[in-house]
Amino acid sequence: MFESANLDHKIAKTVYQREEPKLREALLHAQYDLKEDGRFPVLILIAGVEGAGKGETVNLLNEWMDPRHILTHAFPDPSDEERERPPLWRYWRALPPKGRIGIFFGAWHTAPVVQRVRGETGEAEFADQLNEILRFEKMLCDEGVLLLKYWLHLSKPQQKARLKQLERDPRTAWRATDLEWRYFDLYNKFVRVSEPFLRKTSTGEAPWIVVPGADAHYRSLTVGRHILAALRERLDEKPVPRLPDRNPPLLPPEDQLNVLRALTLDQPTTRDEYRELLETWQGRLNLLSRDPRFRKRSVVAVFEGNDAAGKGGAIRRVTQALDARFYHNVSVAAPSEEERAQPYLWRFWRHIPRRGRFVIFDRSWYGRVLVERIEGYCAEPDWMRAYGEINDFEQQLARNGVIVVKFWLAIGKDEQIKRFEEREKVAFKRFKITDEDWRNREKWDDYERAVCDMVDRTSTADAPWTLVEANNKYHARIKVLETLVHRIEAALGPEKGKAKGKGKRAKRA
Amino acid sequence: MFESANLDHKIAKTVYQREEPKLREALLHAQYDLKEDGRFPVLILIAGVEGAGKGETVNLLNEWMDPRHILTHAFPDPSDEERERPPLWRYWRALPPKGRIGIFFGAWHTAPVVQRVRGETGEAEFADQLNEILRFEKMLCDEGVLLLKYWLHLSKPQQKARLKQLERDPRTAWRATDLEWRYFDLYNKFVRVSEPFLRKTSTGEAPWIVVPGADAHYRSLTVGRHILAALRERLDEKPVPRLPDRNPPLLPPEDQLNVLRALTLDQPTTRDEYRELLETWQGRLNLLSRDPRFRKRSVVAVFEGNDAAGKGGAIRRVTQALDARFYHNVSVAAPSEEERAQPYLWRFWRHIPRRGRFVIFDRSWYGRVLVERIEGYCAEPDWMRAYGEINDFEQQLARNGVIVVKFWLAIGKDEQIKRFEEREKVAFKRFKITDEDWRNREKWDDYERAVCDMVDRTSTADAPWTLVEANNKYHARIKVLETLVHRIEAALGPEKGKAKGKGKRAKRA
Repeated sequence: MFESANLDHKIAKTVYQREEPKLREALLHAQYDLKEDGRFPVLILIAGVEGAGKGETVNLLNEWMDPRHILTHAFPDPSDEERERPPLWRYWRALPPKGRIGIFFGAWHTAPVVQRVRGETGEAEFADQLNEILRFEKMLCDEGVLLLKYWLHLSKPQQKARLKQLERDPRTAWRATDLEWRYFDLYNKFVRVSEPFLRKTSTGEAPWIVVPGADAHYRSLTVGRHILAALRERLDEKPVPRLPDRNPPLLPPEDQLNVLRALTLDQPTTRDEYRELLETWQGRLNLLSRDPRFRKRSVVAVFEGNDAAGKGGAIRRVTQALDARFYHNVSVAAPSEEERAQPYLWRFWRHIPRRGRFVIFDRSWYGRVLVERIEGYCAEPDWMRAYGEINDFEQQLARNGVIVVKFWLAIGKDEQIKRFEEREKVAFKRFKITDEDWRNREKWDDYERAVCDMVDRTSTADAPWTLVEANNKYHARIKVLETLVHRIEAALGPEKGKAKGKGKRAKRA
Repeated sequence: MFESANLDHKIAKTVYQREEPKLREALLHAQYDLKEDGRFPVLILIAGVEGAGKGETVNLLNEWMDPRHILTHAFPDPSDEERERPPLWRYWRALPPKGRIGIFFGAWHTAPVVQRVRGETGEAEFADQLNEILRFEKMLCDEGVLLLKYWLHLSKPQQKARLKQLERDPRTAWRATDLEWRYFDLYNKFVRVSEPFLRKTSTGEAPWIVVPGADAHYRSLTVGRHILAALRERLDEKPVPRLPDRNPPLLPPEDQLNVLRALTLDQPTTRDEYRELLETWQGRLNLLSRDPRFRKRSVVAVFEGNDAAGKGGAIRRVTQALDARFYHNVSVAAPSEEERAQPYLWRFWRHIPRRGRFVIFDRSWYGRVLVERIEGYCAEPDWMRAYGEINDFEQQLARNGVIVVKFWLAIGKDEQIKRFEEREKVAFKRFKITDEDWRNREKWDDYERAVCDMVDRTSTADAPWTLVEANNKYHARIKVLETLVHRIEAALGPEKGKAKGKGKRAKRA
């Protein structure tokens, strides 16, 4: 990967002085065209060896273009806010929206490479991280991000010369610290790790561009002209290139039997039983939420279900048991303008809780494979890839200690019409029923099919779906509470000195 | 993944008898349309739990369609031919060509899943295998293969019932052996391994379709109708969906300096020096080829270079040192009709040697990123992805003990014209010069650029490029021999009782 970059590339000062103003102007134009065009964001990663001019490049790009429309982020040691979330969270929240340029000075590759060089991670863990990066970058590209990755390189003699030079000049001596010299000692190891890393994370859509870093003029022209060419290519291309539809179809079951129809929607729980059970389970949930062991965990609860299935009521029975400082409700409707300018998972990543907290989603990222699929808001290749992307997302949460609990509240078609009509009659409930609900009802079968595909493709050991029979609201609310309690208990493990298994686990999808 | 499949799906016999003839006819039609259409191959994988009807399904598909145009393969324990090649070799050689249907009864997923269930592989190795599968399947899809993956499932009670039933009937008792019962004991473990496996290898383009296997009618209709729907969708869609062009451009270096221009093409080796060196290095190569340690290794040597750079002459100096029974020359020209009907790497996989052998490629898979790129025989997204695919291919070779040695023979533009003119003058050399050579020469700069991108993107620790200064043929031939010897020596390791390092290693790209 470094064959060309190891050569002594140079651009004469006179050439640079002649070319730089032209490049600068063209870049500024492209930046404004991008802003106007607004169809895609640009994300520039600046990475590479120490002393190869990464910082200078980031600064230069901000000088050349209008810095008000560039989102530049460096990622030093994570903050406590960041440490309490999955590693990718900090990058998600820094993503540039459509029409803008983001510059990441170091990014998701930094920690894996550095840890591997230091021997803190093994070959297997490294391969796993690399894989996660590949899937993440593929998702970004599929979402339309123009991802430009620059790896600034120095040969070993060049790195040495660079550090010596910095040392000699009192104005720059502070930049050649012991840390830099320690990196130099690791040079060979660094190259041995980063070579296969670059190779395996170079794809057709997001190849690493290795840039020789020793000569500032050469480096600057190379990065600048590549950004310009990539921007122009994408801007001048109408329409935006989309994923081809190469997906085999998903068909409904041949015998009409599915996980929803297999449910007994009417359950016998009475009001009196409900009151007693409610107290029991809310009490247990409250205790768990204050358990010291929970301070290292968090809960992401997802509520999906038919219209009028009672999601709101079930959620209230959960939050009643929680301290208001420690939970947050997220009601998901159509995305805002800001959210539409980002990859679709962005609006959910922003709400991922810190440790010790609950976040409750009333509708969620599953809209992608439900309403967006059914209404044609996204194309088939896009919702087909979403199953895998959602599984990746939830796996990242689960790996980071988040307990992911997902409910589908199911009611029958008759029960729904009863509830719709009741809502239309009762004045204070009328706001709950809209034309859209009636339209959705006409697509009952499409939704049923989409829900079954969703359960089959996203119910995982880490993040299983719980199907809740919800014709009887009492039953539904208790099953939700009980499931939550059992999932949290299972995640916390047995209390010290106590035996395992506090009760029968709620049946899951 | 198994939520729906765990339900007791059934199709009544009368329904099946009514539907089956219609389905059969439609499948047969689709098969013939596919043959006529000839734009893409179909590869059907039949996998899943023991007793779920995999064999029956394979047989049925062969009954329903015209078996003369179906390539059915099972993959029992590998033959010695297969064991001596990388694991994917056996699947490559069984791939169906365009216009045909291939059915694989078990495939590349079988061994990883089974080994993981048996605890023979760890989590990390499993993740690595899974990753290799993902990359392989993505390549197949990008090459236009319609990949249909069926996972036949039984719930635990269903599997038990099925085995009992087989046992009771003397005609089928042979199918419920101890082996099957041992699989049953592992049922839970099998599901725990296969669930995340299916999830992570399900992509939008090649999702696993989980098929409930207990009821033969249900299972057969499900698989048959899905194949039909997938075939029809792709057949009725013109043109074939292609990868979008979302690649940022690759630009030449800003200062015109590159790895080729950095070479000193004229080297001083004299005829007398050459004769002596030739004897020395051919002798060492011959000894190595007969070294007992070489019986577990093999060599794949790739010769690329400018037209008239002397590839043929260099190759002859190599083969002169080898026993004709143990090497094979592959001269790569335009692909045959059979080869064009396959993914582009197929025609090279066929020539991968057994252990203890040499295969020498005069031109190679690098045509994809050289002539095919330059002449526009393949689109930019296709040659851009090829760098990664080629690296994957060579990594598989290297992991399996193959020593991959790649030479670029470089001559100058002046030297080339001299040789062209000489060839035109000498009668017995005239066959070596064609109009194409002259046309290629006009694209000298394009080739130079493509070669540099190739070296930067495919020179790896396992499979480095060696750039050979070839204006002086003597030098070139000796460098080739010397490099080969050093690479083989390094791979075999120090001989017992001897010290390391037999001489200076040839300088590599």
